[in-house]
Amino acid sequence: MEKYRASHPHHTLWYKAPARDWLEGLPIGSGRLAAMILGTYKTERVALNHEWLWKGTNRERDAEKKAHLLQCVRDLLLAGKYEEGTRAGGEAFGGNDGFRIDPYQPAGDLYMEFNHSFVHNYIRELDLKKSAVTVRYQADGNIFTRQYIAHLKEDLIMIHVDANGKPFDCTIWLDRNRDRDCSLAFDTTADCLSMDGSIKNGISFRVESIVRQKGGTAHVLDGRKIAVDQTTELVIAVNMGTSATGLDPRKECEQKHITKTPDWNTLLKSHIEEHNQHYGGFELEMPLTEPDLPTDERIKRVRTGGSDPALMLLYFNFGRYLLCASSANGQLPANLQGKWNEDMYPPWDSDLHHDINLQMNYWAVEPVGMQNYAEALLRHIERFVPHARKTAMDLYGCRGVWYPIATDPWGRSTPESKGWAIWIGAAPWLAQHMWWHYEYSLDEKFLRDRAYPFLKEVASFYEDYLIKDNNGTLQIVPSQSPENRFKNSGDAGPVSLCVSATMDVQLARDLLAHAIKASRILNVDQDKREKWQDMVEHLPEMQIGSKGQLLEWNQEFEEVEPGHRHISHLFGLFPGEQITSEETPDLFAAARKSLELRLAADGGHTGWSRAWTTCCFARLGDGNSAFNHLEHLVVDFATETLLDLHPPRIFQIEGNLGGTAAVIEMLLQSYHERIHLLPALPSQWPEGKVQGLRARGGFKVGIEWKNHRLVKAEITPVKDRVCKIKTSGLALKITDSNGKPVSAEEKNGIISFPAKAGEKYSVL
Amino acid sequence: MEKYRASHPHHTLWYKAPARDWLEGLPIGSGRLAAMILGTYKTERVALNHEWLWKGTNRERDAEKKAHLLQCVRDLLLAGKYEEGTRAGGEAFGGNDGFRIDPYQPAGDLYMEFNHSFVHNYIRELDLKKSAVTVRYQADGNIFTRQYIAHLKEDLIMIHVDANGKPFDCTIWLDRNRDRDCSLAFDTTADCLSMDGSIKNGISFRVESIVRQKGGTAHVLDGRKIAVDQTTELVIAVNMGTSATGLDPRKECEQKHITKTPDWNTLLKSHIEEHNQHYGGFELEMPLTEPDLPTDERIKRVRTGGSDPALMLLYFNFGRYLLCASSANGQLPANLQGKWNEDMYPPWDSDLHHDINLQMNYWAVEPVGMQNYAEALLRHIERFVPHARKTAMDLYGCRGVWYPIATDPWGRSTPESKGWAIWIGAAPWLAQHMWWHYEYSLDEKFLRDRAYPFLKEVASFYEDYLIKDNNGTLQIVPSQSPENRFKNSGDAGPVSLCVSATMDVQLARDLLAHAIKASRILNVDQDKREKWQDMVEHLPEMQIGSKGQLLEWNQEFEEVEPGHRHISHLFGLFPGEQITSEETPDLFAAARKSLELRLAADGGHTGWSRAWTTCCFARLGDGNSAFNHLEHLVVDFATETLLDLHPPRIFQIEGNLGGTAAVIEMLLQSYHERIHLLPALPSQWPEGKVQGLRARGGFKVGIEWKNHRLVKAEITPVKDRVCKIKTSGLALKITDSNGKPVSAEEKNGIISFPAKAGEKYSVL
Repeated sequence: MEKYRASHPHHTLWYKAPARDWLEGLPIGSGRLAAMILGTYKTERVALNHEWLWKGTNRERDAEKKAHLLQCVRDLLLAGKYEEGTRAGGEAFGGNDGFRIDPYQPAGDLYMEFNHSFVHNYIRELDLKKSAVTVRYQADGNIFTRQYIAHLKEDLIMIHVDANGKPFDCTIWLDRNRDRDCSLAFDTTADCLSMDGSIKNGISFRVESIVRQKGGTAHVLDGRKIAVDQTTELVIAVNMGTSATGLDPRKECEQKHITKTPDWNTLLKSHIEEHNQHYGGFELEMPLTEPDLPTDERIKRVRTGGSDPALMLLYFNFGRYLLCASSANGQLPANLQGKWNEDMYPPWDSDLHHDINLQMNYWAVEPVGMQNYAEALLRHIERFVPHARKTAMDLYGCRGVWYPIATDPWGRSTPESKGWAIWIGAAPWLAQHMWWHYEYSLDEKFLRDRAYPFLKEVASFYEDYLIKDNNGTLQIVPSQSPENRFKNSGDAGPVSLCVSATMDVQLARDLLAHAIKASRILNVDQDKREKWQDMVEHLPEMQIGSKGQLLEWNQEFEEVEPGHRHISHLFGLFPGEQITSEETPDLFAAARKSLELRLAADGGHTGWSRAWTTCCFARLGDGNSAFNHLEHLVVDFATETLLDLHPPRIFQIEGNLGGTAAVIEMLLQSYHERIHLLPALPSQWPEGKVQGLRARGGFKVGIEWKNHRLVKAEITPVKDRVCKIKTSGLALKITDSNGKPVSAEEKNGIISFPAKAGEKYSVL
Repeated sequence: MEKYRASHPHHTLWYKAPARDWLEGLPIGSGRLAAMILGTYKTERVALNHEWLWKGTNRERDAEKKAHLLQCVRDLLLAGKYEEGTRAGGEAFGGNDGFRIDPYQPAGDLYMEFNHSFVHNYIRELDLKKSAVTVRYQADGNIFTRQYIAHLKEDLIMIHVDANGKPFDCTIWLDRNRDRDCSLAFDTTADCLSMDGSIKNGISFRVESIVRQKGGTAHVLDGRKIAVDQTTELVIAVNMGTSATGLDPRKECEQKHITKTPDWNTLLKSHIEEHNQHYGGFELEMPLTEPDLPTDERIKRVRTGGSDPALMLLYFNFGRYLLCASSANGQLPANLQGKWNEDMYPPWDSDLHHDINLQMNYWAVEPVGMQNYAEALLRHIERFVPHARKTAMDLYGCRGVWYPIATDPWGRSTPESKGWAIWIGAAPWLAQHMWWHYEYSLDEKFLRDRAYPFLKEVASFYEDYLIKDNNGTLQIVPSQSPENRFKNSGDAGPVSLCVSATMDVQLARDLLAHAIKASRILNVDQDKREKWQDMVEHLPEMQIGSKGQLLEWNQEFEEVEPGHRHISHLFGLFPGEQITSEETPDLFAAARKSLELRLAADGGHTGWSRAWTTCCFARLGDGNSAFNHLEHLVVDFATETLLDLHPPRIFQIEGNLGGTAAVIEMLLQSYHERIHLLPALPSQWPEGKVQGLRARGGFKVGIEWKNHRLVKAEITPVKDRVCKIKTSGLALKITDSNGKPVSAEEKNGIISFPAKAGEKYSVL
């Protein structure tokens, strides 16, 4: 067998051994279905998930009416009685820990047993361009190739096995780890395995696996297995269904049957074509030579002091792949583990976390040109609206919407705990993604029909929730800096509830600014716009503390955990745009100081926290620090298969996707209607080329650089626009697609020129 | 959880991850039963074996009558027509490849499923002193400890699980990989799992697993599993039975039931006590500091150029452990894989190979004080005698016994192939172990009742088989140097059959010498003794070739494969004693030359071949070369769990056990009634102490050394004997246990003194 060479070195994860556990597996997914491939030598395990398989079901879980308690909590907090206020707030608006979300659960496992006497020359790879896992090895004198895809068009998990035309045997069965609340029923014929699961007071589901072979025979073994003998080719198609929509899970399975013997090459081809419509439109190339080593060895080398800047590219592309695989045909957004989970009771129930994790999952989706995949998130936001409206009114007596800090796909809107649950920032933070989806596309229909209505909902919550203090300032009470606590001199213990935490104010400002812009673009609601403008002007300002840091709270409280994993007050730097070197240089310097203080106190100790840190350094224009943190993220917070880890060893996908966003921020930033080319290029990436980027304002952007400097950029607007580019001191020349110079105006380091829709402008 | 430290650094294999496949598992065994422990995080697999589970059964498989063809084959070979002779020999006395042994097969697997959400601080260890595998980790807030033993007194595979007193769940079931010829039947109650297997025209077997718990509940799940809920302690006892002896496998299982709830500590204690009666009597200590690393990391370090002389000690002790675990209660000797095999059709059927592998398995058993475990081999030899007698007569028309090159436990005595099968050396080679068992113990009853009768059987075969040539020399025709071929100028292709291959002559000489000694000791058969003496005197002499090498054949034929894995003609050096520096210095030099030529041509390329090479260098008195090859054996021919490998990745136990023998040969040699203290000490082991060694002639020996030199030895004879010690130029002083000097005589570098039974003599 020839020595292995990855066909696309920046697009292939590969290994010389099978996964030792699920966490070392290679993920495939269609958004609706997902599977983790372990590549085991003899008894292969394909761990299965269905995005709607959450243990519970659509229970009535709305919050109680509590609005009458608001004033009392506010009074305490406004009087500086934070401890009492936090306690009263917890009792009024908190939940209890026993009332958590029903967990996201695995669908079961497909097992394939090969009776090999020994296996050698083993290779396991995930080809990101093909969106396929391949396991290849020699056994019993033959070369076996197993291929696994989550077919994007057929929306099925599909497996293909051959032994180079030689006949082989395989035994196939389904099983699921035991859960006391779930009863299983199996049905097996010589070409179909099915497993029906029924959870007590919960969801029902079905896993169905159709087995097609070329030659040989098949029979039922031990009542629950299919024994295939002496076939030369095996195709297994797995579908799953749930009762989530009220249907019999069997119906969902029936919608996607493979009816005739499929030709594998045809299937594979249509899958790759579909995948590349999204994954393939983007290309980041750098002339970096990666060591000819399996991916785990490369990680190990960097861990022990080696350098491998190309590994970060692979991590970046893996993030793009995970966006596809977790969201493509998904009705639900990627949860804490995307769509991959093997545990009956996963950490945090593998839920939908609204205080950064879910948002981070979709930070990269617009700029990398995968905007279609934002749909899974946007639908989640919209699906939740009725619950969010009811809760805003019941809990706080406000119009508009309130989103809990964490939820399930059923619209659970009860606060789950007495602490972190009392926080109003989830809705505006989610609204940012609604706005972005417009801002990157300039799709006015989307803005009118979907984004603006939602922005308006959140704005109306603020209209009711904000209160004017004695100085005429609008305050947010109760407020919280997510999951963080402070010590107030008057109180015994650390507390969380406060008045106008920095992030809460930033979120309000962000939401209102976008609502104002949207109403202006759509030319609607002038009265509201004026009201919102007035609100913005009366919000508290950000403050700088005694160490030169940006304050996280409205006073310089003593920090309980100076290295806290959340850097919520830096929302204004990233993913917001309220702190910039141009508009707010003092706050910009203070934001950097805050980040440094966090890190000096051992901050950034989860994967996602490290990803956020990386994004912030990119926004701070510090490419080398960004690269340094990206490298930590890749080698210190990932499994051997680059899956992001929360300590001790919990998979959380947002570190992967946040890392992908961070790479984008190093190459291109766009805010305040400016495009920044190569704003944070690290010295490890001296030369490169990127195509398929998207910038806010409806621009497609390509960039080339050499010797650490811009060589050329190409910019195409989707609409007639004035294009503004930050020059970073470079004298830029703009030409149109005919090479004709375009007259541009320079002012304060910003070049502006009128750009026509569809025209490709070169920036040299 | 505290940082892990191996309690006995030279006696513990440990890892931070589970086995990725069976070959990386940790073996336990009682001789009758065996299991490989993978230590998987969630679904643990305990791979089970029963020594008598060979697929077939006791079929009539004796050779046809072929003796009338012998003369014709002899005439051709004696006339130098080797090609024709080999062809005629193959047709006359060979078999055909379709007629192989029915394979040694696995009994199935016990699975234990733990529904952990994640696992960390994982440790997996095999404690050789306790003869126990322990898997320990944190999960779900508890510390889980799983322990696995092959209880030597109860003769059961036993498993214990606890979570530090906290309740936990576990699901347990049995299964077996599919084999088309085997039908399975399962029976499950809440405290017992059973699996009955029945092989078409073959053996029947049963695996029975009794589950005992402390607290919690248990019920049958999915018809085939036991679901244990919220127990605080779990004990699983696995027994297996076969129809090998004609009984219902159920009967064998019933003999060893655990009837009452067992107390784990009591069970463990009695197991360890029993184990230490054999493993514990011996101690090899060296003040070597081993790196505080898992065993696989240590192997990797040496592979990449590091040094770790203590690793060889661990390998040595692991070999002693494997002797216990494969032979303790065994009725059958360790086969090619000891008693551990996961394949339905393992390489070479995991059979009993008589042309070195089986013998090598037991090279160490006498000198390390595990002579009781030789019983499994000795019984195999004796069990085979009726078949061997019949075949000697039918195939060759000779009295006495003929043993095939490879067999099964059913006495299969048909030759299996046309090539290697035509070889008469298996019986005398096995007889060497009969003689050793006497020579180390001086047990005259054993000599009279068991060893001598067998030696006489083999001698009588030689009496009939040897033929006198025209010069009066006794020749062995046909003869063969096992599995090797040569090119003769007159022939077209390479051939194997010849006249009096060197090894065949050495084996005849070895056998006859021991038969003569035995008859003299027992004072019987004087007439036979005289005949044997006459035969020895007329056997051909060893010859030295043009390169100074010991000839492998009776002429200097062209070698087809100069790096051949077998070094059969060095049998005279080791394990024989016909080539020594004292008695035959020229042949001694020639033997070294032969070994060097083999290695220069890439010899030693299987684990067992490398182990034999190591033993030979020890006999050559070259400790540094011996260490060098031992190191290769340990790091280049072993899995991460130190299991010996045949390329590409086939487990074969004899490399482990041969490596253990090699270490002994580096520390103590005894032959020709002399004891050699530290005959081949490598420079990597400058200081050490060994106790519990046994030397031929009935001596117990302890040795201490420092700065590469002997400090003190202690010698205790089991009978009144003259004790002879080779001094290696040292002036040795002998004292008795009262410190009184013992008068000793020195002659030619050998000190002799009269030693009394049971007295401990110090040699300083």
